[in-house]
Formats: sequence, C-alpha cells, structure tokens
Amino acid sequence: MNILYDERLDGLLPTLDKAQVRERLTQTLPDMTLLHREEDLRPFECDGLSVYRVVPMLVAMPDTLAQIETLMKTCYELQVPVVTRGAGTGLSGGALPLEKGVLLVMTRFAKILDIDPDARTARVQPGVRNLAISEAAAPYGLYYAPDPSSQIACSIGGNVAENAGGVHCLKYGLTVHNVLEVQVITIEGERMTLGSAAFDAPGFDLLALFNGSEGMLGIITEVTVKLLPKPEVAKVLMASFDDVEKAGKAVGDIIAAGIIPGGLEMMDKLAIQAAEDFIQAGYPVEAEAILLCELDGVEADVNDDCATVRGVLERAGATEVRQARDEAERALFWAGRKNAFPAVGRLSPDYYCMDGTIPRRELPRVLKGIAELSQEYGLRVANVFHAGDGNTHPLIMFDANQPGELEKAETVGGKILELCVEVGGSITGEHGVGREKINQMCVQFQPDELAVFHAVKAAFDEKGLLNPGKNIPTLHRCAEFGAMHVHKGQLPHPELPRF
Amino acid sequence: MNILYDERLDGLLPTLDKAQVRERLTQTLPDMTLLHREEDLRPFECDGLSVYRVVPMLVAMPDTLAQIETLMKTCYELQVPVVTRGAGTGLSGGALPLEKGVLLVMTRFAKILDIDPDARTARVQPGVRNLAISEAAAPYGLYYAPDPSSQIACSIGGNVAENAGGVHCLKYGLTVHNVLEVQVITIEGERMTLGSAAFDAPGFDLLALFNGSEGMLGIITEVTVKLLPKPEVAKVLMASFDDVEKAGKAVGDIIAAGIIPGGLEMMDKLAIQAAEDFIQAGYPVEAEAILLCELDGVEADVNDDCATVRGVLERAGATEVRQARDEAERALFWAGRKNAFPAVGRLSPDYYCMDGTIPRRELPRVLKGIAELSQEYGLRVANVFHAGDGNTHPLIMFDANQPGELEKAETVGGKILELCVEVGGSITGEHGVGREKINQMCVQFQPDELAVFHAVKAAFDEKGLLNPGKNIPTLHRCAEFGAMHVHKGQLPHPELPRF
Repeated sequence: MNILYDERLDGLLPTLDKAQVRERLTQTLPDMTLLHREEDLRPFECDGLSVYRVVPMLVAMPDTLAQIETLMKTCYELQVPVVTRGAGTGLSGGALPLEKGVLLVMTRFAKILDIDPDARTARVQPGVRNLAISEAAAPYGLYYAPDPSSQIACSIGGNVAENAGGVHCLKYGLTVHNVLEVQVITIEGERMTLGSAAFDAPGFDLLALFNGSEGMLGIITEVTVKLLPKPEVAKVLMASFDDVEKAGKAVGDIIAAGIIPGGLEMMDKLAIQAAEDFIQAGYPVEAEAILLCELDGVEADVNDDCATVRGVLERAGATEVRQARDEAERALFWAGRKNAFPAVGRLSPDYYCMDGTIPRRELPRVLKGIAELSQEYGLRVANVFHAGDGNTHPLIMFDANQPGELEKAETVGGKILELCVEVGGSITGEHGVGREKINQMCVQFQPDELAVFHAVKAAFDEKGLLNPGKNIPTLHRCAEFGAMHVHKGQLPHPELPRF
Repeated sequence: MNILYDERLDGLLPTLDKAQVRERLTQTLPDMTLLHREEDLRPFECDGLSVYRVVPMLVAMPDTLAQIETLMKTCYELQVPVVTRGAGTGLSGGALPLEKGVLLVMTRFAKILDIDPDARTARVQPGVRNLAISEAAAPYGLYYAPDPSSQIACSIGGNVAENAGGVHCLKYGLTVHNVLEVQVITIEGERMTLGSAAFDAPGFDLLALFNGSEGMLGIITEVTVKLLPKPEVAKVLMASFDDVEKAGKAVGDIIAAGIIPGGLEMMDKLAIQAAEDFIQAGYPVEAEAILLCELDGVEADVNDDCATVRGVLERAGATEVRQARDEAERALFWAGRKNAFPAVGRLSPDYYCMDGTIPRRELPRVLKGIAELSQEYGLRVANVFHAGDGNTHPLIMFDANQPGELEKAETVGGKILELCVEVGGSITGEHGVGREKINQMCVQFQPDELAVFHAVKAAFDEKGLLNPGKNIPTLHRCAEFGAMHVHKGQLPHPELPRF
C-alpha cells in the first residue's frame, strides 16, 4: 500500500552536493563530530523499521549545544534538510535518513542532569535511555511511568518526538502527560524553552505540540519529566480464554467495573505460543487468548481490585485465572509480553507490525475483522494489544523471499488500518507515522486538515527542512495516493473521525 | 501596570460600520440570533473581570452549527473580528468584546449529547455548565474532575478555552488532561475535529493547542470529556498554623511524603477571617494560615493517608489538625474556600485577584515577598492558594474611590507577577491571559518566542480576526510596553524561564 518513496513528492529540492555541504560544515564544526565515509554512514541507514534504508549524506554527532546551534544555522543557510535520530529504535521510520540530508545523532547527549525528589522531577539530556531515568530515580522510591517495550534501549528525546506509550499508559498516560518542560533548538539555531517547572504555562501549549512532532518542529536538547512514587505493590493476573472475542469483551468489562489497571494487555494464540517458545513465561499455549492485568497501589486496595477483576474475568468466560505467585513470576509474565515481537520474529522470516488505535468497545469487532483478513489472504497474524487503551499491534507474518508476499502483507496491513479508522480509531497509537504511514495520513485526514498541520509546521520551520517526508504528507503526495485510492474505490469514509 | 487599551496596538483596522455589518449578517441569519440595540448589548459589555467594559458592535446568539458557519464566513469575508463568549465567568477579560467586533455568545448550545458509562466519556455542547456534567454522570458513579470555583456557572467551552483548573487539578489534571476531543468551526467557517475517542491521534497535537487558546484559534462547538469514577470516600483535614511560611513549607512536605492529595489548599489570615465571616465554615479565625488537605480513594487507603498527612502537618508545626467529622462538615470546609473571593469582596470596596503559578518549593519565599509588598504599599492582601500545584491567588484590596489606590494595586499586582516569573513560575495559572495580562506576556516571553505564537495563530486564523488583542500580545504592543519597562529599569531577568 505504500507508494515507493519519492523525495520529490515531499517538495524537497536539494541544491548542494555532499562535498559542498561537508566543506561548509567542517569550517565551523570539529572533525570528530562529522561522519562522511560510506562505512561510517552505513550503520545509520535505518532505524527500527529496517524495510526502509537510506544512507545519509552526512552524519553529525555533536557534543555541545553550541555545535547544534552552528549545525542548524549552517543547514538553514544552505537549505540542507536535517533528520534527528535518538537511539534508532523507532518502528515507523521516523529517523530514516535522507540521501541529500544531514542525520543529526543525539547519542552524545546522555547525561542525567538532575533528580529532584521533592519536586518529583528528572531533568535529563535527550539521549538518556528511558529505563535509565527510572534507575536513577529508584533510590528515592520514584520512577518514570511511560515504558515502551524498547525501554532498555530507547531514549527520552525519541520518546517525546514519538509521544511514546507503553504497557502502563492506560493508567499513567502517554509521554505528553509525563513531560513538564523541553528545551529545543530551532532550525534557525535559536534556543527555546517550552513548558515550565510550574504546573501551567501561559500562551499556546507548544510543549504538547512537540510531543509526537517526530522531529519536524525543532531539535530537543533537554527534557524535564515527572517522576511518580513506586506503587507499594503490583500484582498481575493472567486469564485464559477459549475465544479471542470473549477476551476483547472482558477488557471493556474490567474498565466498566471501575478499575483502571496499571497494565491491561492481550495476546492471541499465535503470540502466546511464540512468546512461550522464546521466554518460557508459563503461558497457557492451548488458550486462544490471554489477558494480563496488572493492579498496583496500596496493598489492601490491590487485593480488593484483584478479587473484583477475577470475578469480572470469570463472568466474561475465562477458562482459567492465575495470579503471579511472587515478583519473579510477575516479571516472567511481563517478559513474555515485552518480548512478543522478537518472539514472533522467530516464527516467520518477516513480519509487519501494525499500530492502530481503536475505541475499547470495538476490540471484538476489529479482532474478528483481522481474523477474516488473515484467512482471506492466507497470512498468519499474531495479535499483541495494549488492550486497555485500545492500542493494537497485529503482527502480519510473511516471507519476503516468496514473490508477492510482501505486497500481500502490505495490503492486509492497509486494510487493518482502514478498519481501525472506520470504527473511529486512528492509524497509529504509539509508533508514530514516520515514513511508514505517511500515505495512510491521507486516508485519516482531509486536505484542509493537512493544510493546518502544514501551517503549524511552517510556524517553526518555514523552509520545511526538519525531517521532510515524515509524519505530515504534502498535499502533492496525497493527491498521488488519493488517485490510487479512487481507482481502487477506497475513498475515505465520510464519517471518519478527523484530526 | 496595564497600558490603557488601544486597539491600534493589536493591529486591528476595522473597516465597516455597525449598520453595514448588521445588514450583511441579517441577509443570512435569523433576526432573533442577532442583537444590536444598545440595551440588548449592554449586558455583554464585560465578563468576570468587570474593570474592563466595552459594548460590542453586535451580539450573535446562534442556535445551530450552520448559523455559526454562516456567521464565520461572513465575518471572514468582511474582516470583522469575532470574540467568543461562554458563560462570561472568566477572570482575565478573555471574553471582553470589541467595539468594532461581533460577540458570539454560545449559551444556546447547552445540551448534554451523550453520557457513555462504558467508555467513561461525556459528549456535550460548549454551553453546558461544568457542574451539570458531573450531575448527569452521577447516576453512573462517575464525575468530571476539573472543578473551577465557578463550576456552578462556568461552561465547558470556556473551560477548554482557558484550560481551567480547580481544587482537584493537582491529582486529576487541568482541563487539557481531561478532554478527549473537540469539534470546532474555523474562522473560515469550516468544521474540524481535534483529538479522537481513541487514546492517541496521529499528527500534531492540535487538541492540546486548543486548550488554553482563549478563543484565538477557532469556535468550540462540541467537547468530549473523560469521566472518572467517584472516589469511594473523601476526607478532609484542616491544619492551622501560626506562621504562613510554615504552612507553605508543609505543602512541600506532604508531597515529599509520597501523597498526592485530591485537593491541597491554603488560605492566610485575612482570607480565613473573610470566609468565616461570610460562610461560618468553622475556620480558626486566630490562625495565620490554614491548609485544607483532601484525601480520596478507597477507604483503607484514605485512612492510612490521613494518618500520614496528620503526622507531616504536626511535624511541620501545625498548631491544630482537625478532620471533618462527616460529609456535611467536609462540604462546609470547602464552601469556605470556594467562596473566598466573594468573601474578600465584603471586606473591601474593590479587590484585584492575581493568578500566578510558582514551583511548589518557592511558596514560602513568594509568601514573604507578598507580605513585604503589602506592607510597603499599605494595601491589604488576602492569599488563597491552590497550594499543591503552586497556583497562587493573592487578592489585593483597595478602594477605587480613593485617588491613586487603583494604580497602587496594579503596581503591587505587577510586582507579584514579576516575583512569580523570577522564581521560575508563570504569570497565570488557571485564569488565562485574556485582556488583563496581555502586557505581562511581554515580560514572560522574548520577541522571537512571541513570533512563534503568532505564527501558530496564523496557521488557524491568518487574518487575525479571532479574539484579537487577547492572550498573545503583538510585537508592537510589547515594544510600547518594553519601552516603559526600560524606562523603569525593569527589563526581563536574563534567566527567566521562557514559554
């Protein structure tokens, strides 16, 4: 369903060649911050979405804010596009380089600047790993809540750029709900502070705008996040179901019972079997679906909630409900879930990971639709869901070496996303739009809505130099893509939710 | 400290006169939706900040979305500015009309469209009162958390426009954290949907941008809010202190003890006495300060927290800690706080209510600074704080009939706001910038930062027709105001936090 990438569709008209850009940059930046040889550039050709690969023109790895300012001013003057990269774990190609652009790699900004246990905040550089923040806060009994599955490797700058979620975001929110302030450098090389250490800031909420902006508005150079007190206890229940739709229905029942779990995850049979084979988490391999429901807080409270949830699950038709006996088993239950993607990778030469978000009540309907598509196209689909917040990750398995299988996988993926949009959801939850879903944005939004996005983008980056070709499609690109759609009779549903 | 209002400073160049505009509008709008006679316009000359009064050119009270579309298209074509008004309870003059502008009054959009207990959402028209949402949700055991003191009268559209807070926002967040989706009509008369019923939406976070946008980006026509389950129990502790700084310090101690209260409010002696005189809430009139600390949740949990907080308060030097005996006394404790503003109004012919937000740890320092300013200028100041989130409401008492007192009050107010900015806070918490603090925005932000705000504004409203002269000052205005500042030697501190 993706049109082959064509930079001209994104309105890019690069002027200078690599030698010219390098010459200008080396006048003001130290040699060691600029990589230019093929063998040095190659490791940066893709991020976590490795089906797209582009060797960047140059890679900049600055050490200081002053170097970033200089880099930005020079690129702005030369009209050279800039793509920013954090840990490179993104799953939508948001950090995919441009052949005629500079890749700005932020890994050298990896200091934890301050942990303030009274204010419950951490001030960190963007290259700090997500999990490292919680580790640094642990001595104070605090932690940073959003926990994408890649939390051991992904960095907070990328988390902000993608508005990352994770297992706990139903209860504790997405990245945007846990960030107080970011320092940025604009494409013109100017420093700005968005948000504040105080609870609210006047003017437009530019801080929220930067969360999920996918590197299109500015370079994030510092992040202040909220820290939360570690819950006194956390307990996890695992429920087995002989029917995947029953499990989907149980999710809504738990929420309707007045419980907001710390985590509420669902896996279907294929995902269970793959994870069990890989991790030996103790999952019931014969089940059609499992739910993992974590309850956290004060002990008495958690015990009450466990009893309530157990009752709900049993009434919803669970064939078995097990509570993790101890911390070790709880960690094991989660390890199976957190490693579900690599586990599925062991079942199939290739897989395509989707990231649609749907209203919770539509879970059974969407699961049924996915099963039908899987049958129709003869491709296995493993389902791993942040079920509580309706964020679905169908993993479509295929073999790229079999002619036509990649195209079939892309077709199924596109149809799944359209199903998500149809039931009132969106084409992405936490992985972002990036390069991957740039065309699907034309399905989700109307031209006049995309025009507003572009105008907001221009407010920060008039020349369109920051991460062009990602996140917000040009109207030109949508016209191309829309033509295909009309041809296939798949025009956007008139009742689609917009924005 | 406010420059006398001058529309020319806001770049407005009105062209048509009232008769011309009215003639054009009556061609497409029913007569009953358009008020034009002096006696019909007069009731709308101010909002809750009654020191500013302007009779609008015309008042439009549409009944249907189609009428709003028509109104917008016509005003856009004629280049007539539009100010939107909800319940008119705003405290910063955000709904102050323009002499040469149309005032769009949204009070006829007051229907609750849907309460969905499973999804825990309410879909309502913008004119629905804040408290009415909770009343409609009560049969399902749910409520809408943000509760500004004006909640009995203020409407949800205005809450979104001002990103309203309230007593419970420390624990449950500001309006922006509790809104899932808004429907808007642009100045060009087009409908858009921002956000979605799903947990996340792709593209830039325009929904967050609308929260606190003070009517400058579009007309809010529908709001979907999150509902929360009503806590099983809520208990409130009232602590007395013989020293206001000790009370300020105790606020930080409670948070540092790992407790996030449902509400954490502070009042000083003057505010206590005024409230007690008005409401007979049982406040200790001899105390220098009181803290009201509400703890909510599951009963066992709340009892634990009550014991912890009592210990913290006693160690912090509280002279007395009382727990409300029952629901009636709890309601009474809060009634005193929620009526503190009108209560102070009974003590003094006039008062000027400030709304600065500061980092929690700076409470003692700012309280001391306010006391010194009060002494220096000989004006009484009553302090009412949303202490938990650092949102301060000093009420400066004066008598406008005494020559020079208004000016003195404005000077003290300006100095308090500058003190807030100096300690890392902001010039507004929940009341917004509106007309009142338009000049202080020049203190808080640098010209290049204001330029970004203007560019974002232009992305939605290129001609600058929506609520001009509020929220974001023109650079022209700041240049005028800045000149005054340089003259008085009060240039912005170089270390001020920005944005």
